[in-house]
Amino acid sequence: MTETPTEDVTHDGHHGGHHGYMSAKDDYLKRLRRIEGQARGLQRMVEQDTYCIDILTQVTAMKSALESVALALLEDHMSHCVLDAARKGGVEADEKISEASAAIKRLVKS
Amino acid sequence: MTETPTEDVTHDGHHGGHHGYMSAKDDYLKRLRRIEGQARGLQRMVEQDTYCIDILTQVTAMKSALESVALALLEDHMSHCVLDAARKGGVEADEKISEASAAIKRLVKS
Amino acid sequence: MTETPTEDVTHDGHHGGHHGYMSAKDDYLKRLRRIEGQARGLQRMVEQDTYCIDILTQVTAMKSALESVALALLEDHMSHCVLDAARKGGVEADEKISEASAAIKRLVKS
Amino acid sequence: MTETPTEDVTHDGHHGGHHGYMSAKDDYLKRLRRIEGQARGLQRMVEQDTYCIDILTQVTAMKSALESVALALLEDHMSHCVLDAARKGGVEADEKISEASAAIKRLVKS
Repeated sequence: MTETPTEDVTHDGHHGGHHGYMSAKDDYLKRLRRIEGQARGLQRMVEQDTYCIDILTQVTAMKSALESVALALLEDHMSHCVLDAARKGGVEADEKISEASAAIKRLVKS
Repeated sequence: MTETPTEDVTHDGHHGGHHGYMSAKDDYLKRLRRIEGQARGLQRMVEQDTYCIDILTQVTAMKSALESVALALLEDHMSHCVLDAARKGGVEADEKISEASAAIKRLVKS
Repeated sequence: MTETPTEDVTHDGHHGGHHGYMSAKDDYLKRLRRIEGQARGLQRMVEQDTYCIDILTQVTAMKSALESVALALLEDHMSHCVLDAARKGGVEADEKISEASAAIKRLVKS
Repeated sequence: MTETPTEDVTHDGHHGGHHGYMSAKDDYLKRLRRIEGQARGLQRMVEQDTYCIDILTQVTAMKSALESVALALLEDHMSHCVLDAARKGGVEADEKISEASAAIKRLVKS
């Protein structure tokens, strides 16, 4: 959304367009940096012999933040890539649905 | 497990303030550093406009690595802190079980 | 897929069409009956004082079977209802994506 | 909890062959019957061509109820079988912890 036309010309990726998460790129980077910070915080906790249960609580919070990133990526992907493919029709739409379903399955079963 | 008797005297057990994961501290730090690296790798993927589904696959792998750390911490905690409390008996044993159960619940329901 | 035009006239549900899972209705019923049987099997195990861990193993198997039903329903829903809405375009397509995303979120976070 | 002293004499403890969930047997049976009912309700929903997302919501509720049963069984198991083994000491305590940890892992990773 904040992309200039020049950038549009440069990275004209999938189907001449952008991936689902492009408009929220900065938001994803911010969330992932925070998650990276949580990983470093966990190392400090282990180094300082923090009580196991307190470390576990932080691991759970980090897992939850990561799942939220996955769910947001998935929604963006469906709103853009999947919808675009569906509008164009043809076999590509079915392939996009199968691919997204497989990603959801890996996330749920992991 | 790799502790020498001398170390045993110095850090005398869990009652002297040590937790279940102490013997595997280096292993946890290595795993958490790798997870921190995965968080940085995800940022690079977003910056380079990697395809959404490929990012999701990496997020799922990172979530799985984090869950494995949680499960290892939990097992270490039960093998040390919970067992120690149980051996001493009394109300503390029940409290440790409740506390561990609550941590498991947060992990499963998160 | 195996539906005759006559059936199309009779159950003209959503948007003059069928829900995503219609073509696989018998398959879903079979899976749900098996899951119902697992719930009865668990009651027998409790009545017969089966060892806790063995009951837990069965509960995990049942949870996994249920998740597989959820994932199959989701894929059918996206292949039919969501794709149909996307082809027609307009705001309804976005609503279907939001609705499916919310369902995925509930499943992952539950 | 609702056991009378007479019953206490009859089923004396877990060493006489009883499991962690014994005192709450009726509660588990009630919860499992409700879950069995949810499985039947889902079959009715499929038969009546209920909208996919509404079925998914019920599947998620049923999965959540099942997970709560698993977590309750696990806590009962740890409060009784694992604590008992820990009090007696020896290798059996470690085996019980490993066994419970493996069950938790299957539940989390399923």
